[in-house]
Amino acid sequence: MKQMTYITGGVCAPKGFRAAGIHCGIRSKDSQKKDLALIVSDQICSAAAVYTTNKVKGAPLAITKEHLKDGRAKAVICNSGNANTCAPGGKELARKTCELTAAQIGAKEQDIIVCSTGVIGEPLSIEPFEKAMKPLVEQLSYDGGTMAAEAMMTTDTVSKECAVEFELNGVPCRLGAAAKGSGMIDPNMATMLSFITTDAAVSPEMLQKALSEDIKDSYNQLSVDGDTSTNDTVAILANGMAGNQEITEEGADFRCFTKALGLVTSVLVKKLARDGEGATKLIECQVKGAPDKKTARCLSKSVIRSDLLKAAMFGQDANWGRVLCALGYAEADFDASDIQVEMSSAKGSVKVCEGSALFPHSEAAAAEILSEEEIRITVDLNQGRESAAAWGCDLTYDYVKINGDYRS
Amino acid sequence: MKQMTYITGGVCAPKGFRAAGIHCGIRSKDSQKKDLALIVSDQICSAAAVYTTNKVKGAPLAITKEHLKDGRAKAVICNSGNANTCAPGGKELARKTCELTAAQIGAKEQDIIVCSTGVIGEPLSIEPFEKAMKPLVEQLSYDGGTMAAEAMMTTDTVSKECAVEFELNGVPCRLGAAAKGSGMIDPNMATMLSFITTDAAVSPEMLQKALSEDIKDSYNQLSVDGDTSTNDTVAILANGMAGNQEITEEGADFRCFTKALGLVTSVLVKKLARDGEGATKLIECQVKGAPDKKTARCLSKSVIRSDLLKAAMFGQDANWGRVLCALGYAEADFDASDIQVEMSSAKGSVKVCEGSALFPHSEAAAAEILSEEEIRITVDLNQGRESAAAWGCDLTYDYVKINGDYRS
Repeated sequence: MKQMTYITGGVCAPKGFRAAGIHCGIRSKDSQKKDLALIVSDQICSAAAVYTTNKVKGAPLAITKEHLKDGRAKAVICNSGNANTCAPGGKELARKTCELTAAQIGAKEQDIIVCSTGVIGEPLSIEPFEKAMKPLVEQLSYDGGTMAAEAMMTTDTVSKECAVEFELNGVPCRLGAAAKGSGMIDPNMATMLSFITTDAAVSPEMLQKALSEDIKDSYNQLSVDGDTSTNDTVAILANGMAGNQEITEEGADFRCFTKALGLVTSVLVKKLARDGEGATKLIECQVKGAPDKKTARCLSKSVIRSDLLKAAMFGQDANWGRVLCALGYAEADFDASDIQVEMSSAKGSVKVCEGSALFPHSEAAAAEILSEEEIRITVDLNQGRESAAAWGCDLTYDYVKINGDYRS
Repeated sequence: MKQMTYITGGVCAPKGFRAAGIHCGIRSKDSQKKDLALIVSDQICSAAAVYTTNKVKGAPLAITKEHLKDGRAKAVICNSGNANTCAPGGKELARKTCELTAAQIGAKEQDIIVCSTGVIGEPLSIEPFEKAMKPLVEQLSYDGGTMAAEAMMTTDTVSKECAVEFELNGVPCRLGAAAKGSGMIDPNMATMLSFITTDAAVSPEMLQKALSEDIKDSYNQLSVDGDTSTNDTVAILANGMAGNQEITEEGADFRCFTKALGLVTSVLVKKLARDGEGATKLIECQVKGAPDKKTARCLSKSVIRSDLLKAAMFGQDANWGRVLCALGYAEADFDASDIQVEMSSAKGSVKVCEGSALFPHSEAAAAEILSEEEIRITVDLNQGRESAAAWGCDLTYDYVKINGDYRS
């Protein structure tokens, strides 16, 4: 099998996907930030999605779920600036948005995926969608992925894209994705918004299986602030235009496809964590020597979620006691008596804890290692062979600033 | 029954309790902050305690548990500045501390409760205890409660005490308490440190029952930062010197006693929340109309724990969408379709959400209400008769500052 390689681009990297993003006026009128994104496949796609587990859900999720019942879709329409959640007439608006999109691109309303992200509880008008749909569709292009990624952004400071090329039984295929999200991020069975495209042919069932499995080690292991959003959605579209034999069961092709998917989502998760609201650092926590995978996932995420640890990372303080504290209160069953903790970055590595107690080290050297922008905390539980990682960011003055005054 | 009334004082408000607090040098030598507290009863007490559920536990907890097996205690020794957790020789040190205390006050080692609070993972020496025990005991006095409360403080900015007077079958009794805690606060079946004294006679079994029940609605409903500490301990001592007939079963006296206990712990919980690290506001979330008590507790605490809501409160932003979001991701089973939210303070009240959607209101008026130091968020689920409250604080620049640089 040919090596999988990262390629430039995002949702337009696979064959037959066009995208666009424009400013339609959902955001305050003086801002010209793009707020409406469209992704369209030339051919009908197999499609699958995962959604937030929050009981308070954005109105678009109900419509998208309904439209994906048949496992088929052709386009994604997504606005930023307003979450269309807890607002009157939300479902009707989401439905109407699909109608407008379908009419303009010549598709069925049932083949449109609709998403919204932004402020909760403010009414959203259909007017900006009506005015913008024609120019938006006219702007669609095979290299419009970045425009779409930009139009999805809320408090994100950079757009997030990733793509990979791989082979299925000798046929070159591509998989690309865009993601947005910076605050209210602690996905659970889903995430902020991420749209994934591929030109590989994959049945809807296998697409759902691949996605549902992938998020356990990617998006669900991400936390910016412990707040699970009301609008989290990850959707994947496979248009089959690469020409491979459709994947309809497990086997070598499916494994290859899930590996490609994992390469893309793992990069996007790190980009999301690094761009967490106010973040100055990407923090990765690797837990190894765990009795089982679930325990490893749970413990690594507990460390990443700890406000105290996050503030210590901001302060470049190797406060490993907070790592042990966060492991200890996680909802997991493990032996906490022989834990080892190392902290590392491009500047080196320092062991700070062994046998669940202080391992003598230089505080100055540790602070130097923690001065980097990418920090890894490696925890060894010394009681098994399983491992997992989770990603997050530091807690900074700017997180408080951004969220003390988000709506004004 | 005579009305229960709040009285001045803390752990020394009940008859026969002396206390003291001094600087013994556990904290950095240039600081003169008190770091060693002692509370001693004139007579042997019934005693009970609850502890953290964190799997990583401070060494003193094991010794205190062992000493409380017989349900009896005479004194509490507690240092601040070092948690004696994940440090070599921790249990031996805690045991030796009890020995020193017992010898100096003329008690049995098994009748001493020992606690530590402060930095995790740094070795603690017995030397400061050895040097300080004699002057500490000499300083014991019947109005030394505040000194002990001060010596327990870490990042606390004020000491926390409360006391109440009540009658058991015509006999006047008193119950008082001290508490510490400002960060790493999200108690689970226990809390930071709180010591409660009473001169009522209560059997160890009924004391444990009263305490275990009380914390469900008091300390366990408190969150400063979602981090459950390794050293949380709440201990209660009843010396019987009021002369009432010992409470050995449920009934009118027990109900009266638990009410007195609840009056004191509910005040301390609010004091702890208001003094959360960096906090400028006390936030209370009342959830009513819930199908059951557990759901009400879980939902109110989820709101209080949300970093996004906490930052919004700091910014005086009535961002009720974040309240609904935090209700929605709580681990509880309820209907999220008809939620009402009100925000209130001494300046008035404003309804911001009805039927789980925006209720039209003036943002300016809401901001004015949120400018106060005590904020109440009232959530009505409209689906039952149960209610519960939780307490926390806002998330501020100073929380980040304090925790980015705690150890230096």
